[in-house]
Amino acid sequence: MSRPRRSEHIRQALIEAGIEQLSLHGYHGTGIKQILDEVNVAKGSFYNFFASKEAFVAELIAYYTTDLISQLDDFIEGEGATLSEVEKLQHIYRFSLNKYAHQEFKKSCLVGTMAAEIAAQHPLCRDELTKSMKLWLAFFENIFSKAQSHGQVRADLSARQLASVYWAAWEGALIKMKMTANIKPALDIMDVLLGTLFIENKSSQATHTR
Amino acid sequence: MSRPRRSEHIRQALIEAGIEQLSLHGYHGTGIKQILDEVNVAKGSFYNFFASKEAFVAELIAYYTTDLISQLDDFIEGEGATLSEVEKLQHIYRFSLNKYAHQEFKKSCLVGTMAAEIAAQHPLCRDELTKSMKLWLAFFENIFSKAQSHGQVRADLSARQLASVYWAAWEGALIKMKMTANIKPALDIMDVLLGTLFIENKSSQATHTR
Repeated sequence: MSRPRRSEHIRQALIEAGIEQLSLHGYHGTGIKQILDEVNVAKGSFYNFFASKEAFVAELIAYYTTDLISQLDDFIEGEGATLSEVEKLQHIYRFSLNKYAHQEFKKSCLVGTMAAEIAAQHPLCRDELTKSMKLWLAFFENIFSKAQSHGQVRADLSARQLASVYWAAWEGALIKMKMTANIKPALDIMDVLLGTLFIENKSSQATHTR
Repeated sequence: MSRPRRSEHIRQALIEAGIEQLSLHGYHGTGIKQILDEVNVAKGSFYNFFASKEAFVAELIAYYTTDLISQLDDFIEGEGATLSEVEKLQHIYRFSLNKYAHQEFKKSCLVGTMAAEIAAQHPLCRDELTKSMKLWLAFFENIFSKAQSHGQVRADLSARQLASVYWAAWEGALIKMKMTANIKPALDIMDVLLGTLFIENKSSQATHTR
């Protein structure tokens, strides 16, 4: 296998620095110069790699998504393999929230924050954000589908519907985390969702016959 | 009653133009100059009204929230008075989504978008966003509390817990709306939440005895 060329290294470094800076400062709050300074690359060369800031951001949204989903897949098939599907999800959201707390709530889901800030203005980014959201929905749908077949979550809604509500509640919970600079409110939302709302209400029989 | 002074008019016009511009372009995407141009006010005079851009944005978040909640209260006590609590909520989210569609998805909830973009960077705005979120939670809690007492929604969670999940799912649904430039995915999320997840699963008895 031949070594990747230097230009590939620079390109990759620009994408990683872009993810970092955009997560911290948003689209309009991040200048190309900031990213180039991080990577120590001359200003003129940015456009050798990317056609525009928008094209750059679209590409890093794609990279961020596939990279994160592949890390989660590794966890699910490795360390998390013995957990139930619901426990896998609980582990994932607790791990993510603790990571954000460790970063002092300066970052959260790049897909959600970019969508909130620029989806309406930049069609190229919007298309990439939509693709990313579809990948996330497929990821969660797969987990809920298995959870349904093991009787862990309710089956009166499709796995797709559960995934849609789950994803939306997660993005909203992250907004609340950022507002409060605290993970507790976000944890409560996800715990209620997975621990109660998504569980088949078998206790209603018991309640009625009490 | 004395007429409000001209300076009050200008102040109010700046806040309204600020809400409009920030909803469209975000915090970093909106310059003070853009807002002053909308209102036709000389640049120097902005700081007679507001100490800083951050103080201005904090004030308009507060105005946006109390104004919108007061409109919804008017609807609930007026036109919507004969509807059930669940129907009131359905009416409110359908109305809001149609309004956003009419604006070609260029705007959505200012509280959510500001939180996603700047909550981590601007403590003054973060405090105001937190206050706003608490007002929204109290608004929804009140509705869910009534809905519970009328047996319209499940009572195994507190009205506060239902309100928390509802608010988060709504903010996430708006992100999905912006990504897809379509209200259908957001509508589906809210319909599943109110129509199934928040309903006491009385059918589980019927299912089990089928």
